[in-house]
Parts: sequence; structure tokens; C-alpha cells
Amino acid sequence: MSHLSVIQEQQESKSKIAHILAVAAGKGGVGKSTVAVNLALDLKRRGLKVGLLDADVYGPSLEQMLPEGMEPVEDSENPEKLLPALTFGIPFISVAHFKKEASIVRAPIANALMEQFLEGVEWGELDVLIIDFPPGTGDIQLTLMQKAPISAAVMVTTPQKVATLDVRKAMQLFQNMHIPIMGVVENMSHYLDPNDVKICLFGEGGGKALAKEFKVPFLGEIPIDPAISASADKGEALFEAHPESVGVKAFSVLGEKVMEGIAQLSKNSLTVRQKDSFHLEVEIEGEWKALSLHEIQKNCPCARCAQREEKKLDPEVSLLEFSPVGRYAIRIAFSSGCKQGIYPFSLLKTLA
Amino acid sequence: MSHLSVIQEQQESKSKIAHILAVAAGKGGVGKSTVAVNLALDLKRRGLKVGLLDADVYGPSLEQMLPEGMEPVEDSENPEKLLPALTFGIPFISVAHFKKEASIVRAPIANALMEQFLEGVEWGELDVLIIDFPPGTGDIQLTLMQKAPISAAVMVTTPQKVATLDVRKAMQLFQNMHIPIMGVVENMSHYLDPNDVKICLFGEGGGKALAKEFKVPFLGEIPIDPAISASADKGEALFEAHPESVGVKAFSVLGEKVMEGIAQLSKNSLTVRQKDSFHLEVEIEGEWKALSLHEIQKNCPCARCAQREEKKLDPEVSLLEFSPVGRYAIRIAFSSGCKQGIYPFSLLKTLA
Repeated sequence: MSHLSVIQEQQESKSKIAHILAVAAGKGGVGKSTVAVNLALDLKRRGLKVGLLDADVYGPSLEQMLPEGMEPVEDSENPEKLLPALTFGIPFISVAHFKKEASIVRAPIANALMEQFLEGVEWGELDVLIIDFPPGTGDIQLTLMQKAPISAAVMVTTPQKVATLDVRKAMQLFQNMHIPIMGVVENMSHYLDPNDVKICLFGEGGGKALAKEFKVPFLGEIPIDPAISASADKGEALFEAHPESVGVKAFSVLGEKVMEGIAQLSKNSLTVRQKDSFHLEVEIEGEWKALSLHEIQKNCPCARCAQREEKKLDPEVSLLEFSPVGRYAIRIAFSSGCKQGIYPFSLLKTLA
Repeated sequence: MSHLSVIQEQQESKSKIAHILAVAAGKGGVGKSTVAVNLALDLKRRGLKVGLLDADVYGPSLEQMLPEGMEPVEDSENPEKLLPALTFGIPFISVAHFKKEASIVRAPIANALMEQFLEGVEWGELDVLIIDFPPGTGDIQLTLMQKAPISAAVMVTTPQKVATLDVRKAMQLFQNMHIPIMGVVENMSHYLDPNDVKICLFGEGGGKALAKEFKVPFLGEIPIDPAISASADKGEALFEAHPESVGVKAFSVLGEKVMEGIAQLSKNSLTVRQKDSFHLEVEIEGEWKALSLHEIQKNCPCARCAQREEKKLDPEVSLLEFSPVGRYAIRIAFSSGCKQGIYPFSLLKTLA
């Protein structure tokens, strides 16, 4: 089996999860887990097959928020795989399932845990797997970004300026790793007093400012609602326990925006296969169109190729291998030595 | 120079900082940095010489909160040392002073940064150095606990149950590392509406419950006060910008409790020196009292010695070395092979 077909096979086996969404903040305490779990519940209400992965090694709080979950079990058909727990009908795996003790997790162990989650769990068919991303911009975050084929990231911030500083760093890191940012949601935006007056307890406008700065959609404001924190503490589903709350209304707006974002991701998606050593093929509206490697390399976005003159490019350049980058791009290794170019599907479509 | 005298010399050079206080949460976003900076400002108002170390590698927010600070500079008398910045009259060093870029900090680099802060900065004489501890219970936290002679930890939580889960883990880690916990402060306890009605936005009682569980003092409640977050965002001192705010009143209560805690730590402090190979001496009310090593080892709290029968202890046991553990204990290495026993000063006093 050639290297290339191995990659293609991996691509197929992973394709049972249509999209992986990271819910991330770069910072703790902004309500990232709250957003992840309520977004999952809302997307499920909308008919999507949703999975939830709590990747917060140092403070997994999702298990507390979803306590009905049974333990993950071994897959009887494939003993090397784990079947996730099921909570509120959502397949769910948390770091908390594997370490009950307060403990110091050195970075290499945390990295190994992440790999196990991504490769060792049989999620089944999912429209979207939501990863509750750990806070910070360190080892674990980087491992997750490198190992998980993340389609896009939903960023969570509070209105406060000092909070947005950390969130900005995480957004820069996602950008550097070429992972698209679906948008920014602002949590703890305000408190709605009994007279429906908005009281801004942590300042104003941090979320919108970040979205504007990074030119990504603003996905909505979640108010401070005692019902949200009570549901989390009791392990109830907010949507069932407090269906009329302002929190539920706000999460519904977020869910709708994320549905649009997912539709956009699917629209941007593209099936790519090898035609021969000198051509790739892409499927556009049911038709396979060939792209010459020479033509593709002309548009290589990597720093080295971008500086090279066109006439110096090898017209006989051939394909060594290609691999998926999330669900939005492929990385191509050419016989010319260039191995770093990441080609967004949108670019490949314009070339076809 | 013998190993022992090297240790004693280190003890003397470090003794210019009377106490190091960790302000920690195990979790981000509970307002740990806000508590650290306002506690520092309040202790300064009370006449203490205070320093502030922002050890939050992944999201240093203190620099934003104290933006008047000049950069740290090289010490002209000792080019190997850095002089801290000075903000609101408080000597101050932050990770942010050393890395301006959004960046991935792999664990070994973070650990090296921590060591540099502790050994490479000339703090001068301080009554208390406050360390704004990084969130989490991983590599950096462990390095700090092992390298910094921390006198005690002030724990910060919010009332919310899921928040206390992470704070509890950090408290267990401090306990495992034999660092005393001065108490628990609850941040974002409630919002005081214009009619002075307390509105509990994130539940109730998390801080008091933690304090009770760990049998440590409850140090007070800090309300959600828009003045606090506005001061942080603008880089103002809360005490100057909003002297009449409920936030200032709450931080004053915390400051008073921490003053009491520091007084208690100083009372528990003890000067220890070597008399000869078989005796240590401790200074109690100006008088030096001898303690035989044999007597001390009888009370060794380490797991191995605790299980050993008394008659099997060597009456001729001698001292290999001893080293300070924070300002509340010493670790003693005996000729018998036991090197792990940590002797709180309170225990040594009862033996004298």
C-alpha cells in the first residue's frame, strides 16, 4: 500500500465525523464549558448528530455539568476502541472519566491523553463533534490543533478588556495553525434586572471588538443568568429546566448562527483525489475536474514558493503525497521539495 | 564551603523577603489577578513593603491592570540581576515584560521563566511578595511550589460549584506540597443592586463551603462591582479611582484578614541553626535552645519513620543537611538515610 493510499484511507475512516468544532477561549472562567454544553444541546434540538469532547485536562468541569453520563465502555466489536458515555442523548468523553484524583498532569501525559481521545474513541457518525478546548496557549492546545482535523473554532470571551487580551492570543494561535475562526460569542455580557434593564457588570463590547478586529462574525451575547449557573451546578439541561429563561433565548441565537457557519463549512468542503502523478481531481457539482500539479504549485501559498519566479517552477513537478488539513484545505508535498503549502478548498475551486 | 553552609547562605540572602504569598485558584477567570493586585495595593496602604510577581505565563493580565509600570532594568550593582518595574509604588515583574508576542510556551520554557523570576530579580527588602499564580495544576504550578519558598496560599474561588471543583484540586496540591493555606476568598459573590439587595448571579456559598471543608479561615466576599472591572481595564488603582465603592470596602476586609494571617505566620516563624553534628538550635524569645537529632527524628513525620519502632532509631544519628521549606518548616537529611521529613516550626517549638 502506497503512502498516499494510507492517507486516503485515514481520510475515509475519519470522515464519519463531518465537522469538528473547537469551543475555545485561551482563558479559563469565561464560561467556555457552559457555551460548549449548551451549544451541543441546542444543535441536537435542531436535529444534528452531536458529540462532546471535554479536553480540559486541568479542570474538566463538563462532567459536573453532565452528571447523568455512564462511564465510557470498551467497544465489543473493536476492543481497541472506547465507546463514549451518553448524556442527554449526546455521546460524551471527558478527561474526568480517566482521572478521578486531583493530580499534577505533566505536559507529555496530557498530550498522550489528547491523542487517545482522538484516536481511541468510536464516536460513530456525527454531524459535529464539539471539543471543549483547554484554556491557555500551551502544549495541549498545540497538540490538539495538530492532531485533530478541526473544521473551525468558536471563540468565547467576556466583555472585559483584560479577558479579550487572552482570547486574542488564542485567536492568533488558531490563525497561525490555519484553522478558520467561525466567530466570537460574548458570555456574561450583561445582567437583565427585573425591569429588563441591561446592567453591564464587566464592561461592554469586548466580543464585538474582537470579531471586528479579526474580521469574523459576531455570534451573539449570552447574558449572566442565574438559571445558567444553577443548571450547570445541578447537572440539568438548561433547555429542559428553564425553557423560558433569557439564557435559553440567547443560546438559541448562538445555535442558529453556528448552524449557518456549519452550512458554510460544508459548502466550502471539497472531495479531492489523485488522478495521476501530475494531476489531482476535485469533485464540483458531481463532476470530477482535473487540476495539474504545475498549475497548483504556481499558487502555492508557502513563503518559499511565493517568492520564487514563475519560470523557475518545474513544469514536470509531480505529487509525493497529500493530506487533509481540517475539512477546509489539503497540504501537498511536491517532487520539487515543497511540502508546506496548505491549499484551502476555496482556492482549489477557483483553479478547477 | 560545606553543603550546609551554602544552604545557610541561601537562606540569608533570601530572607530579605519576609513572606511569599501565593494568590491561587487552580482555575482561570475567577478574578485571581484582580484579587492579587488589589490585595497588594491594600497591604501597601497598611504600611507593608509589598512586591508583585505575575507568574501567569499563558495569560498575564496584571500588566494590563498596572500599565504605568516602566520596564524592569538591569541592576547596575549586579548585572546578573534585574530590578523590577515600579507601579503604584509596588515593585512588579510580569511574564508580559519578557514576551510581547502571542506565543506557545512549551512547559520547559515556562519552568525556566519561573526560575529566572525567583532567582534573577532583585526585589530588595519586602514584607511580602505576592505571586499571582498561574491557573491549573500542572508543570508551572509545581515548579513554583518547589522553587519558591512560599509561606502560604490565599485561595480565590467564585460561589459556583463547578468553579470550586478546580479550586479544591489546587488546594489539595498545596496541601500535598506542605504549603499552608491562609484561607479562601470568594470573588463575584453577588451583585448589590441600587436598592442594596444582594443578587446571587453565580449561586451561593462556594467559598465558605471550601473553607469549611479544608478547615481554613474564610477571608471574605468580594462583590461583582463594575468599578472593579473598569479599574482593571483602565489600569487605574481601584482604591484611588473609586475610594467609596463596595469593591474597596470588600478588599479592605480581605486586607485586614490577610494582615492577621501574616502576623500569625511571623509568630510561627523560627530561626534554626546547626549547633554540632548531633544538635540543631532554635531561637525562642531571644534564647537559643538545643534540640538533639535523635529527639527530632523520633518525631519525623515521613511515612517511613512513622512506621518504624522507636528502639530501632539510631541514637547516634547525625545531621547531613537541612534546608528551609517556605517560612514555616525545615527539611532535614539524617545520616540514617531519611531525607524527606518536613518539620513544621510549630513542631520544633514543642520539642525545645
